[in-house]
Amino acid sequence: MQKIVQCVPNFSEGRDLKKVEKIVEPLKNQEGFKLVSYEPDSDYNRTVVTLLGNPEAMIEPLIKFILKAVDLIDMNHQKGEHPRMGAVDVLPFIPISNITMDECVDIAHKIGKKIAEKTKVPVFTYAEAAQETSRKKLPNIRKGEFEGMKDKIKEPKWTPDYGKAEIHPTAGVIGVGARLPLIAYNIDLATDDIEIAKKIAKAIRGSSGGFKHIQAGPVFLDERGHVQVTMNILNYKQNPIYRIFETVKMEAKRYNIDVPSSEIVGLVPKDTVIRSLKYYYAVEQRDLDEAMTMDKVTDDAIKYLKFRDFNAKKIIEANLD
Amino acid sequence: MQKIVQCVPNFSEGRDLKKVEKIVEPLKNQEGFKLVSYEPDSDYNRTVVTLLGNPEAMIEPLIKFILKAVDLIDMNHQKGEHPRMGAVDVLPFIPISNITMDECVDIAHKIGKKIAEKTKVPVFTYAEAAQETSRKKLPNIRKGEFEGMKDKIKEPKWTPDYGKAEIHPTAGVIGVGARLPLIAYNIDLATDDIEIAKKIAKAIRGSSGGFKHIQAGPVFLDERGHVQVTMNILNYKQNPIYRIFETVKMEAKRYNIDVPSSEIVGLVPKDTVIRSLKYYYAVEQRDLDEAMTMDKVTDDAIKYLKFRDFNAKKIIEANLD
Repeated sequence: MQKIVQCVPNFSEGRDLKKVEKIVEPLKNQEGFKLVSYEPDSDYNRTVVTLLGNPEAMIEPLIKFILKAVDLIDMNHQKGEHPRMGAVDVLPFIPISNITMDECVDIAHKIGKKIAEKTKVPVFTYAEAAQETSRKKLPNIRKGEFEGMKDKIKEPKWTPDYGKAEIHPTAGVIGVGARLPLIAYNIDLATDDIEIAKKIAKAIRGSSGGFKHIQAGPVFLDERGHVQVTMNILNYKQNPIYRIFETVKMEAKRYNIDVPSSEIVGLVPKDTVIRSLKYYYAVEQRDLDEAMTMDKVTDDAIKYLKFRDFNAKKIIEANLD
Repeated sequence: MQKIVQCVPNFSEGRDLKKVEKIVEPLKNQEGFKLVSYEPDSDYNRTVVTLLGNPEAMIEPLIKFILKAVDLIDMNHQKGEHPRMGAVDVLPFIPISNITMDECVDIAHKIGKKIAEKTKVPVFTYAEAAQETSRKKLPNIRKGEFEGMKDKIKEPKWTPDYGKAEIHPTAGVIGVGARLPLIAYNIDLATDDIEIAKKIAKAIRGSSGGFKHIQAGPVFLDERGHVQVTMNILNYKQNPIYRIFETVKMEAKRYNIDVPSSEIVGLVPKDTVIRSLKYYYAVEQRDLDEAMTMDKVTDDAIKYLKFRDFNAKKIIEANLD
C-alpha cells in the first residue's frame, strides 16, 4: 500500500501572484504526489500549499521549490499580518495513510538536512520532529520573527538543528516538522442561544479543563439561524470525533436542545472517520467492514456522526485519484 | 450562614504515638471547629489531621499545634517514605460551605504571617495561595526536601513568603496553601476485564488527553469480582462528577457493558454533589429544591449518580453536628 503524507509548506509571499506561480512551479505535475492546492493570502502576505502523496517523491521538488522562494523573496522587505521567520516559513509533514508518525519524523529530518546543505537556510525541526522540548511548539521557535532571528540563532539554546548558526541573509530560517492533522470540526445546536454554545464549549475544551487537544468556542450562524460549538481537534487519536460529539450531546441534554448535525471544515483523513465509526459499530455490535470504501465511510459518517454537507471528496485520500 | 473550611495539616511524625497525641492535643475540643480525625502512618512517618469548621477559630489552636510539633520533632533525625520539608509539612485550607477560594487564600496568608512570627518556621504559600507560578505546585517547593532546603531557601527564587530566608534548624519550613477539595471517586464496570477499565481510564484522564483534572486508572476488585475506573477529581468545578460518570457510561457502551454504580471514597462536600444533581434535574426539567436537605441530596445522588454504600455521613457538612 502507498505511503501517503500531507505536506503543507507555507511561504512568505501572498501578494505578487507572478512570484507565487514561479515558486510553486516545481511542485506541479510531479510523479508520486499531487499539488492539491495553493492559496495566497494578501493580508497575511503568505501562501499555504497542500501536497498529497509519497513523501520520498516530494523531496527533490521541495528543494527546488525552496530554492525558488529563497531566490524571489527578500525577508528584509517582506511585511504581512502573519508571523514569519523565513521565505519558506514552515514545512510540516502529516501522516495520512500507511505511514507512522515516526516515519514522518524521519522524513522531516532527512529533508531538513538536505535543505541546510542545498539552500544554506538553517533548519529548526519542530512539533513531533523536535529534538528538544522547547522546540515542540512552533511559536517558541518563531518568537522574534525574521528580524529577531539574526541574534537569537547565535544563542546556544537556539542553535539550529541543521545548518550554521547564522540566518540566511534574505531567506531567514525554516521550520521543518511532523504533526498530526488538525481537524476543523463544528457541532450544530438547535438553538439561537449563544450562551448555551459558550457553556458547552467551556465544558469540552482543554483550556477550561475539558479534553486536552480541543480548542473550542461558540459561534452564531447568521444565515442558518442557530449556534454551533466550533473547534479544532489537535489530536484525533487521543480525542476522537465521536467522543466529542457524544459529550456535546450529553451536555446539550441539560438545556433540552437537539444536536441535529455536525460538520467537517476542509478535509479529513479517512482514518479519523473510521476510528470514530468503530465506536458506533461496537455499540451496535456490528462487525467492521474490512473494505471500508470511501462511499461506505461517507454514508456511515453521515448516519452516525450526523455530518452535513459531507461527501467522499471531503476525505483526503479521495483526492488522490 | 457559618463559613466552613476543611483544614488538613500533615506533620512528620507517624511512629511515636505518644508524640502524635501531644502534638494534636491543642486541636481537641475547641470552639468553632471539630477535629474530625488524625491518622498516623508509620511507613510514611507522617500524620494527616482533618479539621472542619470556622477558619478564624482554627488560627490560635493551629499555632499551638505547630509549636508542639516544632518542639517534639527534629527533622535532622526524621526518616519516612513520604517526602517532607518540615515538622509540620503542609497546611492546606479547603473551602466547603459559604466561603470562597479567595477567602481561603486570605486565611492562608493571615496564618502564614503569624506562623513565621510566632514559630520562627519560614512559610511558603502554595496552590491557590501561591504568589508565584513556580510555587503553585507543592512538589516544586518541596523538591530537595528538608535536607536540601537549607541551601535552596537562600536562592533569590526561593525566598520564603513569610519569615527569614533561613530554615528553622530542627523544624525546616512549612507550606501553607488553599485548594479545592480532592474527590476520590470510582466507577464500577460490570465486567472482570481489566483491559476495558484501562481503556476507559485512558479516555477520561488528563495525562492521556482526557479531562484536565482527572487522574484515573484501572483496578480489579477481588472481593466484588469486577473492575473499576478509580480516580481523583482535582477540580470538581471544571470536571463535575456527572460529566465523568456520563462519559464513562458512553465509553462503556462500545464494550456493551453496564455501569451499575459508582462510589465516593472518604467524604464529599455537599456543593460537589448538588452541582452534579443539577444536571439531572435540568435533563428531567425538574426544579431544584431550594432546601436540598442532607437526606434529599443523599437520595438523589444514589438515584442519579448511582452512588453505592452512600449515606448522609459521607457528606462533609453532615459531620459538623
